[in-house]
Amino acid sequence: MDTERAKERLDAYELHLFGYSHALSVMGMDGVTAAPPGSHVPRGVSMGILSREMQRDARAPENEELIRELYEHREELDPELARRAELLYKEQRDRNAVPEEELIAYRQLLNEAGYVWRKAKAADDFPSFAPYIDRIVETQKRFAELRHPGKDPYDVQLDSFEEGTSRAYYDAFFAEVRDALVPLIREIGKAPQPDDSWLHVPYPVEQQRKLSLLLMDAFCLDRERCSLAETEHPLTGGSSVNDVRISTHYYENDPVASMYSVIHEGGHANYHLHVDPAYDYNCLGGGASSGVHESQSRFWENYAGRSREFIGWLWPRFRDLFPAQCEGHDAEDFYRCVNISRPSLIRTQADELTYCLHVIIRYELEKRMFDGSLKTADVPAEWNRLYREYLGVEVPDDSRGVLQDVHWSMGYFGYFPTYSLGTAYGAQILDALKKDLPFGDLLSRGETRPILDWLSERIYRFGRLYAPGTVVPRVTGEPFRASHYVRYLTEKYRELYGL
Amino acid sequence: MDTERAKERLDAYELHLFGYSHALSVMGMDGVTAAPPGSHVPRGVSMGILSREMQRDARAPENEELIRELYEHREELDPELARRAELLYKEQRDRNAVPEEELIAYRQLLNEAGYVWRKAKAADDFPSFAPYIDRIVETQKRFAELRHPGKDPYDVQLDSFEEGTSRAYYDAFFAEVRDALVPLIREIGKAPQPDDSWLHVPYPVEQQRKLSLLLMDAFCLDRERCSLAETEHPLTGGSSVNDVRISTHYYENDPVASMYSVIHEGGHANYHLHVDPAYDYNCLGGGASSGVHESQSRFWENYAGRSREFIGWLWPRFRDLFPAQCEGHDAEDFYRCVNISRPSLIRTQADELTYCLHVIIRYELEKRMFDGSLKTADVPAEWNRLYREYLGVEVPDDSRGVLQDVHWSMGYFGYFPTYSLGTAYGAQILDALKKDLPFGDLLSRGETRPILDWLSERIYRFGRLYAPGTVVPRVTGEPFRASHYVRYLTEKYRELYGL
Repeated sequence: MDTERAKERLDAYELHLFGYSHALSVMGMDGVTAAPPGSHVPRGVSMGILSREMQRDARAPENEELIRELYEHREELDPELARRAELLYKEQRDRNAVPEEELIAYRQLLNEAGYVWRKAKAADDFPSFAPYIDRIVETQKRFAELRHPGKDPYDVQLDSFEEGTSRAYYDAFFAEVRDALVPLIREIGKAPQPDDSWLHVPYPVEQQRKLSLLLMDAFCLDRERCSLAETEHPLTGGSSVNDVRISTHYYENDPVASMYSVIHEGGHANYHLHVDPAYDYNCLGGGASSGVHESQSRFWENYAGRSREFIGWLWPRFRDLFPAQCEGHDAEDFYRCVNISRPSLIRTQADELTYCLHVIIRYELEKRMFDGSLKTADVPAEWNRLYREYLGVEVPDDSRGVLQDVHWSMGYFGYFPTYSLGTAYGAQILDALKKDLPFGDLLSRGETRPILDWLSERIYRFGRLYAPGTVVPRVTGEPFRASHYVRYLTEKYRELYGL
Repeated sequence: MDTERAKERLDAYELHLFGYSHALSVMGMDGVTAAPPGSHVPRGVSMGILSREMQRDARAPENEELIRELYEHREELDPELARRAELLYKEQRDRNAVPEEELIAYRQLLNEAGYVWRKAKAADDFPSFAPYIDRIVETQKRFAELRHPGKDPYDVQLDSFEEGTSRAYYDAFFAEVRDALVPLIREIGKAPQPDDSWLHVPYPVEQQRKLSLLLMDAFCLDRERCSLAETEHPLTGGSSVNDVRISTHYYENDPVASMYSVIHEGGHANYHLHVDPAYDYNCLGGGASSGVHESQSRFWENYAGRSREFIGWLWPRFRDLFPAQCEGHDAEDFYRCVNISRPSLIRTQADELTYCLHVIIRYELEKRMFDGSLKTADVPAEWNRLYREYLGVEVPDDSRGVLQDVHWSMGYFGYFPTYSLGTAYGAQILDALKKDLPFGDLLSRGETRPILDWLSERIYRFGRLYAPGTVVPRVTGEPFRASHYVRYLTEKYRELYGL
């Protein structure tokens, strides 16, 4: 094989795909920000056309053959080219294992499911959505069988979102976390809570916008390459190291909500912004996996952003923006209030400690939905039972229960666990970082750059070059262990609540 | 020819083009609004890829043949299909008359010219830009000869922006306008001016944003299908009746600037929003021409928005938004201040009366640049001489003189005249409308809907179905005459300045 020539052809092929995916990414972000609501019709048409062109390109025999040939010779290639061949070949194999008409039907099913879910959530009507869950799970089982005959279908789902994971992997991880956290959460439930009512009075949105820019600067987010928008649900979009977007949502009576959205999405953004620019136009761009990405968003949000040291640095600046609201309070007050742990109904609003239990509940249900031991009709009752058991809260209706998340309607069975796994990756990475850098001291002076550089050098710049499961061992010199995460939460919350 | 089948194929071809052009339109608007500045690099790459794909599609032999065949049978087709064939065939013929490598070289030249012009304007350095003017004019002359052998190249340019126009057409039009307006402007120059200093104190941008929404509602701009953004230069983008964007620029010390940007761009938007939705995915979408489009933006901006009646309706609402600033003033004050005529240097900031002279100056210069009687090196001196002669102002430097407009760097020679022609179309359309509707009464009650409906019914809904030159005769029952425009300006400004 003429490797030089093959690489040139692959570069050209991936550059071409980039043109489409960048356009689709901009249109997607525009659709939830600046676009008028009614524009979903033409946008659907044009995004459909571009997606089909992308697909056609990917299915072109000369491109498929090129990728197959590179994959077969991957041992002879440099690591970057070999990884590209591996990722693209896996994608090709998964795609071609399923008849095209079934893939199209599945996309239509998800489209419809999204629409039905939205209506079902608004109307608190689980039964209308239940048949879609059934059809999506059935389809995913069939695809799993076609792609990986004999392999457990939920394992296939888990692996598709986080390479190398399985039920066995997560079972061990979640057991350790659950056994440590459930009793701790119970104990905190009996302890007195700080009064955070002063953080739920009006904080003018104009001032909150200034806080966002201050936070972007505090976390070294390059505004030349990363912009901030406002959306219903905060998110990060990115398709190039020169084009990353984050968004937040302002609530007038809750400045802390947007504050941590900016830091969380800013963590995703910083990861993206520091990938090797040479990967910009090929599949090595972006992050290693959703788990590793989440490890970084939560690293910045929680380990840095919710630390006593960072809050100490932020406090005088926050107070300058909201002097009347902050009257009579101090940094320690602020620290305790942004770290209140209180079992709740909604995953996206959960605190650092209880968050993982929201994920565990979803994981346990999904496992049983896939192995047939839990009928879809019984999912709401099981959901409510587990919320009672793990979090001690009563679910008043399915809108605030089983219907709260968009994920199932998108076919994201097996995705939730990556949130917790990533957070746990982050804790172990934090322990390694602390051996090299005075983490707290730096944050107490608002010096985030050395921390960002440390992470960029070891994680961010590599993009998707290494399999996600290798990141923690490579960075920390040890296999991944949940104990770092459990110890972090236990120490932090025992101290906070004086237990 | 199987017309049914041919129409189906053309629909599919144009729908496919729509996918690309909609994506490009969204990316263009995103680039000047939400995108981070540094994203111009990946955006340039992806827009280039999509544009090349569009070109490849347009040049595919089967598409070219389909269009040629439809064009040859146009007499047998329904008017809509015939017009589409005509427009697409003209585009094809123009494209194919020029060797592809020359088209590519020309696009590169324009790219470079845009960059050089921006730097030249900032540095007040006309000589650095002059060679680009020469090369662009030379290229346009060559393309004109290839496309329309023997035809005057400036006539070709004029016709390319406004079908059916030529130097003869514009010479007659501009002579009439110039002869009437130059003496009137001189007279006003000696009359006392109202004091508008109260409109140049701080008007908080937050309140100006509210004014924008009030104005969008006042002019029936459907916010479901049209959104408002902020850009350096106000503009309208639109690629579907369900996806129109306008933008404005807020100046804290000049609320009137953004106010008329919103109304002007809103006029373009309302045109676009009311095209027959059936034209959304083919070349009949959008407006008849830049001239006809400008007739509508200026109709709403000036004939409606700067009328005494509309200002009377707006005044109490404006005062509610800015009570302190409006203290001691009244609607008549406001009316006189938004209609001050004062010769100035910058076209885009010119008032309704002097605007046309800015255009005439450019038209006269361009004519002579194309016929060889004016060397590029001498353009700045001529520019300054004409500003002195027509407007009585001294041009202090080329940045505020010959370098002020982006148009020449984009190859838009022959475009400026459409601004004035459109405005004059609008005056004649206004006179026809007044025979059917109590224009002033409606505006004094803020009732714009009947006016919008009248215009939609007669102009907007037809999109590009009719040649632009047929619009005024069809709507007014008379050939186009500049006299309506001249009379409108003369009467309005004589009354305003008590002459």
